[in-house]
Amino acid sequence: MIDSQLKLQNIRNMLIRQEETIIFALIERAQYKTNCVIYDPSAFEITDFTGSFCDFYLYKSDCVDSLIRRFTAPDQYPFFTDLPEPILPTISPKSPIIETGININGKLKDIYVKQLVPYICEEGDDGQYGSGVLCDKVCLRALSARIHYGMFVAESKFLNQTDEYMLLINAGDREGIMDLLTDSDVEERLLARVKKKAQTYGQDPGDIAKNYKIEPLHVVDIYRRWIIPLTKDVEVDYLMIRGKEYSNV
Amino acid sequence: MIDSQLKLQNIRNMLIRQEETIIFALIERAQYKTNCVIYDPSAFEITDFTGSFCDFYLYKSDCVDSLIRRFTAPDQYPFFTDLPEPILPTISPKSPIIETGININGKLKDIYVKQLVPYICEEGDDGQYGSGVLCDKVCLRALSARIHYGMFVAESKFLNQTDEYMLLINAGDREGIMDLLTDSDVEERLLARVKKKAQTYGQDPGDIAKNYKIEPLHVVDIYRRWIIPLTKDVEVDYLMIRGKEYSNV
Repeated sequence: MIDSQLKLQNIRNMLIRQEETIIFALIERAQYKTNCVIYDPSAFEITDFTGSFCDFYLYKSDCVDSLIRRFTAPDQYPFFTDLPEPILPTISPKSPIIETGININGKLKDIYVKQLVPYICEEGDDGQYGSGVLCDKVCLRALSARIHYGMFVAESKFLNQTDEYMLLINAGDREGIMDLLTDSDVEERLLARVKKKAQTYGQDPGDIAKNYKIEPLHVVDIYRRWIIPLTKDVEVDYLMIRGKEYSNV
Repeated sequence: MIDSQLKLQNIRNMLIRQEETIIFALIERAQYKTNCVIYDPSAFEITDFTGSFCDFYLYKSDCVDSLIRRFTAPDQYPFFTDLPEPILPTISPKSPIIETGININGKLKDIYVKQLVPYICEEGDDGQYGSGVLCDKVCLRALSARIHYGMFVAESKFLNQTDEYMLLINAGDREGIMDLLTDSDVEERLLARVKKKAQTYGQDPGDIAKNYKIEPLHVVDIYRRWIIPLTKDVEVDYLMIRGKEYSNV
């Protein structure tokens, strides 16, 4: 019997619910200016740490989250390495996906800092550095969970069409895998849904001026340019490893 | 000239924007079950720590936030004491409110755990302990910032009606101060606005079943039963200290 976490409808429902989390997080970040000083590794001198103010906060948050065994969950991935061991006994819930070591958080953080923040925030410095990095952490975690959830999608699709995927995997045909994974109708529906949600959640219903806290088309674009492609990269990476394991069994 | 942070309209705008932050946070928490085990101090054995899993996470988060000098901001208050010193040089922006030592986070946490979580979350255990406490932290911080922001309200009103407040303060008439602070029309408008926002943000616009992620009237009730009264308690506490300082100058 297929693990309920791998039923495509359950995965889609999870991805749909994550849209709220992502849009709320982006709206929260967008209330502050870019504050680029928080991403500049040379702006603050931090004892025993090399990196930006934001990096420091993410690293310290990773440490705390590792202590509470956050990264034993199959959709949670840290941004840093060398983290403390969990202080709670590790439970190992049976994961429906295989262990791969995939973690695209480095690439995600780079895109987030260099492209996404300047895209959604007004340029400038409002001094709200603490509030800014708190929002950064929530945004990055939400995006990371969504993107790494691609492994659930990939596993589910692999189980449904094992032979087709194995042919492509054995041929090393990443592009072919990408094509087989892609469902353009689903993607178009997703983008339309995200636009509607961004319009709904991004506008104070009592605001006569009808200002958006974040431009809905920017949210759509964030999905189109970064979230969907990064998710699919994770899916392809996962399948390449998955296929190898399948061959060896 | 009056500090722009103390202009009543600017304060109201800030409180209105905080409604989004609070409602988003409550919606996020409400997706998980109560998971009462995370609030039970005897449920997890944590080395060198006495308290619940949620307490541990809040304490560790307070430590990180203290390191990045979060609690030097006049609307940020920790849940725990004995926190590490900031690793960044402390900047002391001129605060428009006086230093009072007021911190109602203990009371807030108690209400949150015992009353608010069971009110917004489905009873039960879904094993999402890490996700749960992450949401708890975001909720508690948002509520705490809103409630302690009452000190800005109180300072602003004190400057506008110093003589009236001083009479009541000198008479130790807390009830009289509460009455003078209270603007029922503003409160009714606030509750109506919060209801509308909860309806708007709590419903996936594509959900045909029109389910609310959180019952809008519960959000209204959270404002009515806890947020507004706690804010006013903070305002009265602040004014009692403010009046004494005023007399001594």
